[in-house]
Amino acid sequence: MIVVTDYLAFNTKKRQEFIRITDEIAEIVKKSAVKEGTVLVSAMHITSGVFVNDWEDGLIHDFQGWLEKLAPSGLDYRHHQTGEDNADAHLKRTIMGHQVILPITDGALDLGPWEQVFYAEFDGQRQKRVIVKVVGV
Amino acid sequence: MIVVTDYLAFNTKKRQEFIRITDEIAEIVKKSAVKEGTVLVSAMHITSGVFVNDWEDGLIHDFQGWLEKLAPSGLDYRHHQTGEDNADAHLKRTIMGHQVILPITDGALDLGPWEQVFYAEFDGQRQKRVIVKVVGV
Amino acid sequence: MIVVTDYLAFNTKKRQEFIRITDEIAEIVKKSAVKEGTVLVSAMHITSGVFVNDWEDGLIHDFQGWLEKLAPSGLDYRHHQTGEDNADAHLKRTIMGHQVILPITDGALDLGPWEQVFYAEFDGQRQKRVIVKVVGV
Repeated sequence: MIVVTDYLAFNTKKRQEFIRITDEIAEIVKKSAVKEGTVLVSAMHITSGVFVNDWEDGLIHDFQGWLEKLAPSGLDYRHHQTGEDNADAHLKRTIMGHQVILPITDGALDLGPWEQVFYAEFDGQRQKRVIVKVVGV
Repeated sequence: MIVVTDYLAFNTKKRQEFIRITDEIAEIVKKSAVKEGTVLVSAMHITSGVFVNDWEDGLIHDFQGWLEKLAPSGLDYRHHQTGEDNADAHLKRTIMGHQVILPITDGALDLGPWEQVFYAEFDGQRQKRVIVKVVGV
Repeated sequence: MIVVTDYLAFNTKKRQEFIRITDEIAEIVKKSAVKEGTVLVSAMHITSGVFVNDWEDGLIHDFQGWLEKLAPSGLDYRHHQTGEDNADAHLKRTIMGHQVILPITDGALDLGPWEQVFYAEFDGQRQKRVIVKVVGV
């Protein structure tokens, strides 16, 4: 059984940014030499997420507008009494999810035709990490 | 270590449909001969999901009405400028989740008394797949 | 390959309660002797969840208020025709998620600086369980 651990680092220019990471994950899987198994991709910070969806700019725009409606920034959140101003980022990342498990078959990610993996930053402009854990044979 | 991969295929009659797949997953686990481990059940399309909840028609009705309220169809989504009309399906599947990991103990799914696994279709009437990946010993 | 299965039991005093379980999971991982792998933490009941977020009382208050807004209790849900009164609990747990997979590196949970694991009860005052499944080497 092979277990390989890697980390991706992010420091986005904008506070909110969605970044496609499918190729980075595929590369880590390839290097791991795992032929059959799974790879966990998980945000290590609690104001960002990881999700699988479409690589289409219009839809990404829709996602961001939708999240702002469901979990608005700028409200009088209790969390802000600690000096923070990012309660909405915690809520938004909860809707999007903070981790995915991707199947590996025949040494490659076994994804559907339109599945792409994204890192979703909701409180950026600082150092963040994603853990990538490949497990298999 | 055993890794077994299988796929379930769907082509729903209605655009939106929730289908119970607990028995199909249990059967794949049984055939895999894995006694201890986990099984990943993951939608391979980005307008459908997989979730665990109650097998009760009233609640399924509630889920669908609730999702329509949180992520309405028919809005002027940016994604629709590509010719698509299913942006809401991408959002709805995000709320429900697109994958689950089920524990396997003593050769069977180790689920609570009311846990049932569902495939959630939000843009059906065409061929879709779910990957089922059993990993264990 | 090592697979270790454990269960956490809950019987909350209040109907809705968020309980930090990071230390309990860390202890199970330590006892398992797994050095590299993952641990699945999954609610076995369909009106509770498991999620990773911040250990800050104000934010927990915000989460609970936010969930009540997105998935209100006391509505005329179809599910309630069965005699149940907890449809909102099924919806709330869906937003929070019902399971997480935590990475294990060097024999310990490999979490970011603020990541904490929580059990989220939405229909408590009765016996509930969470399964903890450690898989690795």
